[in-house]
Amino acid sequence: MDFTLSPKQIAWRDRVRAFMQDHVYRAENAYHTHARQEGAARWQIPPVIEELKARAYQEGLWNLFLPPSEHDTEDFRGAGLSNFEYALCAEEMGRVSFASEAFNCSAPDTGNMEVLHRYGTPEQKARWLRPLMDGAIRSTFLMTEPDVASSDATNIQTSIRREGDEYVINGRKWWSSGIGDPRCALAIVMGKTDPEAERHRQQSQVLVPLDTPGVEIVRMLPVLGFDGAPHGHGEVVLRNVRVPVDNMILGEGRGFEIAQGRLGPGRIHHCMRAIGAAERAIDKMSERLQARIAFGKRLSDQSIWEQRLGEARLDIEMTRLLCLKAADMMDRTDNKAARMEIAMIKVAAPRTALRVVDHAIQAHGAAGLSDDFGLAEVYAGMRALRIADGPDEVHLRSIARMELSRAEARLADWRRTGSGSL
Amino acid sequence: MDFTLSPKQIAWRDRVRAFMQDHVYRAENAYHTHARQEGAARWQIPPVIEELKARAYQEGLWNLFLPPSEHDTEDFRGAGLSNFEYALCAEEMGRVSFASEAFNCSAPDTGNMEVLHRYGTPEQKARWLRPLMDGAIRSTFLMTEPDVASSDATNIQTSIRREGDEYVINGRKWWSSGIGDPRCALAIVMGKTDPEAERHRQQSQVLVPLDTPGVEIVRMLPVLGFDGAPHGHGEVVLRNVRVPVDNMILGEGRGFEIAQGRLGPGRIHHCMRAIGAAERAIDKMSERLQARIAFGKRLSDQSIWEQRLGEARLDIEMTRLLCLKAADMMDRTDNKAARMEIAMIKVAAPRTALRVVDHAIQAHGAAGLSDDFGLAEVYAGMRALRIADGPDEVHLRSIARMELSRAEARLADWRRTGSGSL
Amino acid sequence: MDFTLSPKQIAWRDRVRAFMQDHVYRAENAYHTHARQEGAARWQIPPVIEELKARAYQEGLWNLFLPPSEHDTEDFRGAGLSNFEYALCAEEMGRVSFASEAFNCSAPDTGNMEVLHRYGTPEQKARWLRPLMDGAIRSTFLMTEPDVASSDATNIQTSIRREGDEYVINGRKWWSSGIGDPRCALAIVMGKTDPEAERHRQQSQVLVPLDTPGVEIVRMLPVLGFDGAPHGHGEVVLRNVRVPVDNMILGEGRGFEIAQGRLGPGRIHHCMRAIGAAERAIDKMSERLQARIAFGKRLSDQSIWEQRLGEARLDIEMTRLLCLKAADMMDRTDNKAARMEIAMIKVAAPRTALRVVDHAIQAHGAAGLSDDFGLAEVYAGMRALRIADGPDEVHLRSIARMELSRAEARLADWRRTGSGSL
Amino acid sequence: MDFTLSPKQIAWRDRVRAFMQDHVYRAENAYHTHARQEGAARWQIPPVIEELKARAYQEGLWNLFLPPSEHDTEDFRGAGLSNFEYALCAEEMGRVSFASEAFNCSAPDTGNMEVLHRYGTPEQKARWLRPLMDGAIRSTFLMTEPDVASSDATNIQTSIRREGDEYVINGRKWWSSGIGDPRCALAIVMGKTDPEAERHRQQSQVLVPLDTPGVEIVRMLPVLGFDGAPHGHGEVVLRNVRVPVDNMILGEGRGFEIAQGRLGPGRIHHCMRAIGAAERAIDKMSERLQARIAFGKRLSDQSIWEQRLGEARLDIEMTRLLCLKAADMMDRTDNKAARMEIAMIKVAAPRTALRVVDHAIQAHGAAGLSDDFGLAEVYAGMRALRIADGPDEVHLRSIARMELSRAEARLADWRRTGSGSL
Repeated sequence: MDFTLSPKQIAWRDRVRAFMQDHVYRAENAYHTHARQEGAARWQIPPVIEELKARAYQEGLWNLFLPPSEHDTEDFRGAGLSNFEYALCAEEMGRVSFASEAFNCSAPDTGNMEVLHRYGTPEQKARWLRPLMDGAIRSTFLMTEPDVASSDATNIQTSIRREGDEYVINGRKWWSSGIGDPRCALAIVMGKTDPEAERHRQQSQVLVPLDTPGVEIVRMLPVLGFDGAPHGHGEVVLRNVRVPVDNMILGEGRGFEIAQGRLGPGRIHHCMRAIGAAERAIDKMSERLQARIAFGKRLSDQSIWEQRLGEARLDIEMTRLLCLKAADMMDRTDNKAARMEIAMIKVAAPRTALRVVDHAIQAHGAAGLSDDFGLAEVYAGMRALRIADGPDEVHLRSIARMELSRAEARLADWRRTGSGSL
Repeated sequence: MDFTLSPKQIAWRDRVRAFMQDHVYRAENAYHTHARQEGAARWQIPPVIEELKARAYQEGLWNLFLPPSEHDTEDFRGAGLSNFEYALCAEEMGRVSFASEAFNCSAPDTGNMEVLHRYGTPEQKARWLRPLMDGAIRSTFLMTEPDVASSDATNIQTSIRREGDEYVINGRKWWSSGIGDPRCALAIVMGKTDPEAERHRQQSQVLVPLDTPGVEIVRMLPVLGFDGAPHGHGEVVLRNVRVPVDNMILGEGRGFEIAQGRLGPGRIHHCMRAIGAAERAIDKMSERLQARIAFGKRLSDQSIWEQRLGEARLDIEMTRLLCLKAADMMDRTDNKAARMEIAMIKVAAPRTALRVVDHAIQAHGAAGLSDDFGLAEVYAGMRALRIADGPDEVHLRSIARMELSRAEARLADWRRTGSGSL
Repeated sequence: MDFTLSPKQIAWRDRVRAFMQDHVYRAENAYHTHARQEGAARWQIPPVIEELKARAYQEGLWNLFLPPSEHDTEDFRGAGLSNFEYALCAEEMGRVSFASEAFNCSAPDTGNMEVLHRYGTPEQKARWLRPLMDGAIRSTFLMTEPDVASSDATNIQTSIRREGDEYVINGRKWWSSGIGDPRCALAIVMGKTDPEAERHRQQSQVLVPLDTPGVEIVRMLPVLGFDGAPHGHGEVVLRNVRVPVDNMILGEGRGFEIAQGRLGPGRIHHCMRAIGAAERAIDKMSERLQARIAFGKRLSDQSIWEQRLGEARLDIEMTRLLCLKAADMMDRTDNKAARMEIAMIKVAAPRTALRVVDHAIQAHGAAGLSDDFGLAEVYAGMRALRIADGPDEVHLRSIARMELSRAEARLADWRRTGSGSL
Repeated sequence: MDFTLSPKQIAWRDRVRAFMQDHVYRAENAYHTHARQEGAARWQIPPVIEELKARAYQEGLWNLFLPPSEHDTEDFRGAGLSNFEYALCAEEMGRVSFASEAFNCSAPDTGNMEVLHRYGTPEQKARWLRPLMDGAIRSTFLMTEPDVASSDATNIQTSIRREGDEYVINGRKWWSSGIGDPRCALAIVMGKTDPEAERHRQQSQVLVPLDTPGVEIVRMLPVLGFDGAPHGHGEVVLRNVRVPVDNMILGEGRGFEIAQGRLGPGRIHHCMRAIGAAERAIDKMSERLQARIAFGKRLSDQSIWEQRLGEARLDIEMTRLLCLKAADMMDRTDNKAARMEIAMIKVAAPRTALRVVDHAIQAHGAAGLSDDFGLAEVYAGMRALRIADGPDEVHLRSIARMELSRAEARLADWRRTGSGSL
């Protein structure tokens, strides 16, 4: 084991860090000024985003999220970073809410690109993966439904029925992230092609251009009061939406399998960024504590704040180590071998970020509640993660079941050999 | 001591409860539909509010917040409830965010009415207290400033300078609650009349009609993403605002004294309502847990949720008892005698509500984050209380200092008599 | 509702408080010096205990725990205090670990006396209740067994078999408190008289003089390192222990019913004393914080300690109110009506005491860990309560089930009437 | 960075692990049976300890704690493990309270050996380091004093006065760990040689054979009721204790410097073992949860226990990573560079262990409170660490001060360059 970063690891992190320093932090004012507009204007993309993208593309800081794999081809490959290397970069991006998009590394496009990269036909890749990897369009993923517990993908009810050369899709989806983005051109829709099939073979995933007739965004959903413009989370009704059969991904009945790969153990990008968000918050907190005078002395000289600051640093450090370990295991083995670490970091990362941000808000007083310091929106985003990335309770249960299996194995071993710590 | 409610206590609570049952809950849909509109429309008052007010006025459920006092006159008196009786009613009101207004019991008008009731001249009462008590206008309180730690009222910088028969006011205020309300007609402004005076005699409070030239609402401030329409919290610039000298309350240099009475120990209305908000959240949580199936059984049959529900009930019950005790002490002695209880409940009430609401959100999954169940906005409101009603840290410090004084007294006693537990 | 104490309530509390001040605190040194001896000596009763008892008896501060009831007779009655009045007194007693015995109010005798008072025959009362109420002997309760989950009384396995005019008892018990006391003369034993009977009619309770052949104390059990001398908790084997059939309490098959009355909702004496223990700890903590200098200033001037002290006071105050409410409900209705409050205080009281004592330990540094300040032993006792008085988890579950029943009732009502907050 | 263990790292860990499996766990019964004796017998060393030592010595699992350094000589060197490698081994040892002694790796000898190894004269090494490294004697460290806050080493009051060729020592020490051990032959005593010197030059450390006249063990101190026999923690009075001037370590006035090296950033052995203690507790908890039935199902099937078990695993995993990182930094740079990580792990390790052990106790019910499962004593030991290894508050303060320095640097940088995230 070795806790020092290699030159390559440092190099990637520092390139992203420098880009953040030189370009992204400077763009925060423009972005937030745009976002504070009234009405429809705020659902347009602020020009600064496309400027940042152009610059990052030019510097080769692009599609960093896609690790080298057997699916790589001449035309379709990421920047060549391992999960670990990406974790370092993603933490930097996580310091600013909109930064990951500058590097073409933002959800849910990343997941959609991975699906297309892995399972797409050459035609599907040409039509959709190309513009996604080029940052020319954006996309959404229509999975969660209001009426069923979506933590279990087998519950999904939307119907995908074949009629001749087309699929006809009917259903209601919500929390479809990114669908408010004017550049959003594609949805991957999960639904049932065969309700009679074996439970894990009923679902399929199909590509639906957003301009297909019958796709209606009913409303945009707020998260603790934040609508997330200009991307947002939509509630979407699909009424007799028709797409050619060629839009099926991987084949009928493979939807659950694809979802597992996507939503299952492998996805810790949110966690990586949560650590960056916590780092930014601890920075702001420290600066505020140094600057603010109350009852005749700096907040930073009051021991209650020293304790909270110390706790925050401790929490972040431990969480980062766990995140990096999970990424490293994914690189060295696979998502399945890393499933305990993945479950753990999905609990730890948002929790740590929430705790740190909450203290940072308190340190800022009323100003922390408004959007002047950007803390409130981060709080909302992190609170959402505790549900969106799988509820804490489900992850903790998975960890416990693995732990209990080990106990059983230990017990069996002890019965067999009579030795050990039992 | 006696933990049973008297017939009078029950009667008032039940009248309010019945009003809530019969009228307010039914109005929630209309209110929220109004609030979800786009743009300027949501800053209008939804008609249902005035309907509720008319009905409550008619039923004598009006101005419940103002306890009988020596300042009562034929024309200006509240409904005659003690703080304790009001606490029971306010808890009921707290179950719905807009309910207190129906009973003409909402902040910051309540505090402003108390100030006018206690310190206003007959002319001031006739002009401002009358319409406020009639629910004809609303008001705001301009105290907090962006540039100073406002937890210490002596810090306030706004200048109130006398010129002839007028005061000229200059300064910047924020978190001026209710100022977005189209019916808001009056501001009580705190500022310095004499920067050279003794520290607690520098401040004054003066009545400023909102339509006075020079009063400009710069922007409305969100709380965790919620703008609180149609009332809201404003940032306000005062530029050479001129009012007649008769608008001074109580006299120059009395501002700190008035503020102490207002913001000091006496104000626990928010706490009373916070308990109602927590009760509503535990109700929603219970109902959701009974209704939702995950992994083959109801959430309510999973012991983790039993534990959380049990904890929530325990927290609420203890918090309510403390709140009622504080109110009872205010009735029997005065705010000063109750200052430890007041400090304690200001910490306990928002904390309990936050914990319960947060669990309720988690029980609702993604739906808990949106405004579909109303939980997210309550969370934001309660989080704000931890700062707006005085930061937790300040209240806990006050409690500790009182506790330490007792320790000193005990020690002195022990030294003198040699007996006791030391 | 009324949070002021009546003259009678104050009078009883103050009599106990004065006795504590004048006699008990002064006895602490002698008691602890005795307890710190090596070997068998510490299992003798320190003379100071009998002196305190004689004095309290003389002052009429005796058997305070037994509330007036229909079972009272000329010869057998307590001091006449309600549960509420006793709660105030018991809190005072709880400040010193051995104080309750001075007032003949210590467990498990109190529970045993209640059982005999309520269910004993005149002969049983004459032989056992008399000396117990006189403080002449002590007693134990043999219920918990090492091999079964004892939180469910129906699990008890000890056999009580009738042979002619005798019962023959066989079984293994543990956590039999007070059995190490040299004055302990009586055990009430719970066991099965009829394994074939309906589940709640299998158990019986029978009186067993401790000197009956076949009663063997196998070992004394420590609680976090404290053996609780001179009372202690024993593991006891019963081998063909024979007692006359007249020793049966209430009748065969009534054991579960008696246990419910005893261990069920009614017993909150431990909670009352836990609050006193927490009060004593906060006193010690305050005094230490005032006295101790670190890094150039008093601990009490460091804001982290102000926060902890403030939190401690808040916790204690809320817990006391809940405890008093539970006692008041038991007085006004019955244990069943108060079962939610009883479950809640059983969770809250040890938790609060543990939190306060743990902070008090930390404030004392290494000295807090030893027995020099008496904090460590209190910590151990409070930690034990979280299990001994029923595990937290069981109480929280009970609370949740009641809460969920209310939700169901609310839902049914709403379905019927269409009104309400649902 | 790399989270996989190297073959050498695995090899050392596995050798210790195998030794634990084959010998140490089997010795637990004998050890605890010995420890449960009455009176003086339990202060003798159980024979199994010397057997284990002999075997470990033979297998080369000896003095593992002493990393290679410039102070190594032919005669005096450890087993050659880095801090990181030792961390893996120490975790294994931490699973059993007495295991570290088997490998001659137990406190306070380890610290004393390090001091002698680094600063001892050849004569001091021959006389004391030799038998310590051979496991022939044991030693203690007399630093903490009852009358001063010992977290600040400059407070130490014990007087070391030179008279001719001797030092005369007078003072009172406590929490002198290991002094109850019959093999304990040496004390390193910290005290003041020059009260007039500059603050950090007043203290010296001197070697005092325990049989020197004037050394009196006044009493042994319990930790939450555990006396820690046969090692224990003593209160020691030094009355005119005379030692030759050759017993001075490093020179007069160097005591603070030595203490810094010892108690300062470098010492995380307790943390490493705390992780092992937590691992053992989670194992016991898992096994109990699988085995215990309550209310008709296994505890492990109740979601509250799944959550706690999941949390426990998460806590342990993060804490271990932090501990290993701290060790790795100490290896690659030095204790000073690692001082933030060292402060963090000193807070994290006992906290995690306490949390896990507390849950494990609760899972075991009353049995968890006694010494039947060994959990209670571990709890006591971990609670002590929160004070003995430096109070949490002091470590958190150190972390905060470093964090605030970084904020200052960032601010200065930002002022200079105008770029960055501020």
